[in-house]
Amino acid sequence: MSALVAALDVGGTSVKAAVYEPVPGGLRRVAGLRRPTERGEDPARVLADQAGKLIGELAESAGPLAAAGVVVPGVVDERAGIARFSANLGWRDAPLPALLAERIDLPVAFGHDVTAGGLAEHRLGAARGFADVAFVPVGTGIAAALLLDGRPYRAGGHAGELGHLDVGHDLTCGCGAVGCLEAIASAAALARRYTARSGRPAEGAREVLTAAGSGDPDAAAVLDDAVAALGDGLRQLVTLLAPEVVVLGGGLFGAGDGLAARVRRRVAERLTFQRMPELRRARLGDEAGCLGAGLLAADLAGVAP
Amino acid sequence: MSALVAALDVGGTSVKAAVYEPVPGGLRRVAGLRRPTERGEDPARVLADQAGKLIGELAESAGPLAAAGVVVPGVVDERAGIARFSANLGWRDAPLPALLAERIDLPVAFGHDVTAGGLAEHRLGAARGFADVAFVPVGTGIAAALLLDGRPYRAGGHAGELGHLDVGHDLTCGCGAVGCLEAIASAAALARRYTARSGRPAEGAREVLTAAGSGDPDAAAVLDDAVAALGDGLRQLVTLLAPEVVVLGGGLFGAGDGLAARVRRRVAERLTFQRMPELRRARLGDEAGCLGAGLLAADLAGVAP
Repeated sequence: MSALVAALDVGGTSVKAAVYEPVPGGLRRVAGLRRPTERGEDPARVLADQAGKLIGELAESAGPLAAAGVVVPGVVDERAGIARFSANLGWRDAPLPALLAERIDLPVAFGHDVTAGGLAEHRLGAARGFADVAFVPVGTGIAAALLLDGRPYRAGGHAGELGHLDVGHDLTCGCGAVGCLEAIASAAALARRYTARSGRPAEGAREVLTAAGSGDPDAAAVLDDAVAALGDGLRQLVTLLAPEVVVLGGGLFGAGDGLAARVRRRVAERLTFQRMPELRRARLGDEAGCLGAGLLAADLAGVAP
Repeated sequence: MSALVAALDVGGTSVKAAVYEPVPGGLRRVAGLRRPTERGEDPARVLADQAGKLIGELAESAGPLAAAGVVVPGVVDERAGIARFSANLGWRDAPLPALLAERIDLPVAFGHDVTAGGLAEHRLGAARGFADVAFVPVGTGIAAALLLDGRPYRAGGHAGELGHLDVGHDLTCGCGAVGCLEAIASAAALARRYTARSGRPAEGAREVLTAAGSGDPDAAAVLDDAVAALGDGLRQLVTLLAPEVVVLGGGLFGAGDGLAARVRRRVAERLTFQRMPELRRARLGDEAGCLGAGLLAADLAGVAP
């Protein structure tokens, strides 16, 4: 019997796919591909069709598979087997696991992308060995995958909306509320605020980070706001949940430890009696979601590393 | 073999003790007493001595016991068997379960008072039937007992410090931080702020509530601040944890649904896409902690209802 598993991480612009072989301590990548996410009038069906084709291709190139894992963004209720909502992909209450099962002749594990990324950082990455973990990828938005007592805490897909904590500024968020963390500290917010303030376009947050590093005062100011807000948001999370470790992910934190160190300082300054968590940078980069999908598949097939 | 269990809820001023008989759907109280909390130079040892005596008395009056449950306030790490800290009772890193075991000739379950109260509301009270629960007693301080996926979430005793969420005011809290929820919305804060504002002494929060009800503008203003802050603190909790139900406890909420309804409105107004929880008043009053201790004992003895 094969121990190989297929993994699909579905994003708004592309689908990352891989075949992994469980090996002691990890998953070895034996094949991989990336395709633009297909869209259509019935987005869940189109996505399921694409997933079926991709897994067929992977099986052809890598050989027989034991199971597949598919993770998607948005509000996902794995227990109910429903992809509740994705602003990006356009579905609402889609029975994705059932659609996938009709098209894939393998056991299919279904999950949420950020949660799967957190699971991968927990079992293979920066949070290994901890029981209480918050994985916080900072990208277009900001969410937290919570692993509490070693298990993902999901609340039917509603948990972990760290980006919508009120951190006390006067900017309006896409969600309609004022003061949300992600309106001032997401990668998208950094680029947007820098452009608005300086009149110079920035395509992404990394550009703002680079500009701040070379003395651009607008970039520095925008980054200062983001660091303070992230620290304040994490202070709230720490006060309620006291995780042992917070893992910061996303491209912003990939460049070096400078930014994470500033966030760490801000959190530490704002705690009084609360337990300060380890604050680490993610280790698995943008493969975390795909690795997490691979772990879900391996767990399902009983071949997990 | 006896199915009776003893329960002790240790507070800063008194110890509540009871004997319960597990019956279908609940615990029937067959004996109860309340004593001033004994104090001394070695507060953990003094408390363990008192607990031993009390359980002896209970056994004499009620007959043989199957187990005892003892719950205490402060930072409690049940897994490690350590009462980490209680400002009120004066211990630090006390091995209370071991001290109790030396003095009590029964299996002893050891726990945290607010967590035990949450467990009781979950299994016997307002949160029955829900998997994801926040129990929020508002008293001298404000804490939350978190039951997530049906299990208490403890983080070694550090979780649930709801009272120390920053809700954005400029008052300094006892913990040293500015903006903490409990500095503006605890029962103690209500009385203190009313007295400071009106020059009229208030012994407790219920007096402030009554005064507000009869048109006292100072009382109304202090209460408005507390309702807004509680709503804002719960908004943060809901954004991160999305519990199905929030149970509000403490004397303030015992008087009728008026105050809970105002908090409910404030939370609802401040959510955008997040799932609104049920917001209920506690059912078990100040017996919740003792009942929770009884449940811990009954679980330990395998006689739970």
